[in-house]
Amino acid sequence: MISKNKIKFLRSLKLKKYREEYHVTLLEGIRLIDESINCNIAIQNIWMTADSIESNSILVNKIKSKNITFDIIEIDDLKSISDTQNSQGAIAEINIKKYLDSKLDNINTNVVILDNISDPGNLGTIFRTCSWYNVRNIILSSNTVDPFNFKSLRSGMGAHFYFDSIVISDNKSIIDFLLQNDFNILCSNLKGDNIANVAIKNKWALILGSEAHGASTEFNKYHKISIPKFGNIESLNVSVACGIILERLINND
Amino acid sequence: MISKNKIKFLRSLKLKKYREEYHVTLLEGIRLIDESINCNIAIQNIWMTADSIESNSILVNKIKSKNITFDIIEIDDLKSISDTQNSQGAIAEINIKKYLDSKLDNINTNVVILDNISDPGNLGTIFRTCSWYNVRNIILSSNTVDPFNFKSLRSGMGAHFYFDSIVISDNKSIIDFLLQNDFNILCSNLKGDNIANVAIKNKWALILGSEAHGASTEFNKYHKISIPKFGNIESLNVSVACGIILERLINND
Repeated sequence: MISKNKIKFLRSLKLKKYREEYHVTLLEGIRLIDESINCNIAIQNIWMTADSIESNSILVNKIKSKNITFDIIEIDDLKSISDTQNSQGAIAEINIKKYLDSKLDNINTNVVILDNISDPGNLGTIFRTCSWYNVRNIILSSNTVDPFNFKSLRSGMGAHFYFDSIVISDNKSIIDFLLQNDFNILCSNLKGDNIANVAIKNKWALILGSEAHGASTEFNKYHKISIPKFGNIESLNVSVACGIILERLINND
Repeated sequence: MISKNKIKFLRSLKLKKYREEYHVTLLEGIRLIDESINCNIAIQNIWMTADSIESNSILVNKIKSKNITFDIIEIDDLKSISDTQNSQGAIAEINIKKYLDSKLDNINTNVVILDNISDPGNLGTIFRTCSWYNVRNIILSSNTVDPFNFKSLRSGMGAHFYFDSIVISDNKSIIDFLLQNDFNILCSNLKGDNIANVAIKNKWALILGSEAHGASTEFNKYHKISIPKFGNIESLNVSVACGIILERLINND
């Protein structure tokens, strides 16, 4: 059975400072936990309610066959920890040290850079989209929402686990790194070149800024690309824009 | 000042049956209300808190110049009506009879059809994307979330107002209409033709189904199109998929 201290600790993981201090975060829901097992993520422990154990025997068998530490939890305890109504009676504590330790220098293929994205739902959806197109490296500017908060993880639906690196850095270090390593720097901008006509053959770095303010000034010095507007609405959702641009960069056959 | 009865009535608009019975719904937030005025939407009344009036003088002047009925509201009354923390002290009651009365027969240009989309945030984001690409007609299958619930409207960020038709219908009537009117029927499907290679010259109807289950069987009899997957994640978000397909169908230069 889970201890009161452990409940208190798991609850504290809602705050970024505790996630960073202890290098762990929480996954909620059957599908996300299942995906984390498939990807060999370092799972410290899984807790499930009796009802959830009964209705998810395939997952329970998988957990046992992988020798992952596993405990039963009362529904009220789970509710006091979890951020969502949709935890489906299952949570997991996972180790994220691998990601927190990842550095710009580890990146040597195409990369998506997110600058000042504040909505964790958008962040997770962008992660899914990057994973769909097999982009394996993500850089987040320091003002972007934490990718390991519970909502970013839920919205990512497992995409986090397919990345080689998720690096958080400041704008100057990001630009220095990209220039030193010969990336084609592309910055999404309402006044850029039509993405349908931009052919990039070599390694690229795609920068996406916030819907309200675009990317930071220092990123806008590089090749600006744009999705032409045919109608009247002011802006596209940033995760939709990400999908459209990746489609143009990657699906060229 | 707003009456207790009016507060009760506006609160009832959270339920679809009252929106349909009285042909009205509620807009929340400065930007959405501003956009509705720009688009000459039939606004019955606007209410703003004293603080909001003070900090949004441009909007207040616009409201006055258009002779829209306008009242002050106490913050507690507004909170009891509104669905969100982000109403910015402003709500509007708008008439949606034009949309509720719209019929399939009114549609004679490209159309996006949404089948079984349950998340109002996704629906609103799809509406924004359609509006960006100047798709002016939307058909919703009867099992799709109501486009006039408060969250769909917030998430649409004004896109609703740019459509000529938002028609809700059953699958059989939709298919009969499309066939009788010579639409190229395209159905998004994980196993369809690569959308990058699909060239459609004439009038098309794009069907998007739910992320979990795809479009209904009866829609999958037509031309299936697909966004090729390069990575490992199971699915794309449906609003991202919508953006990618519209980019391929519309931005062909």
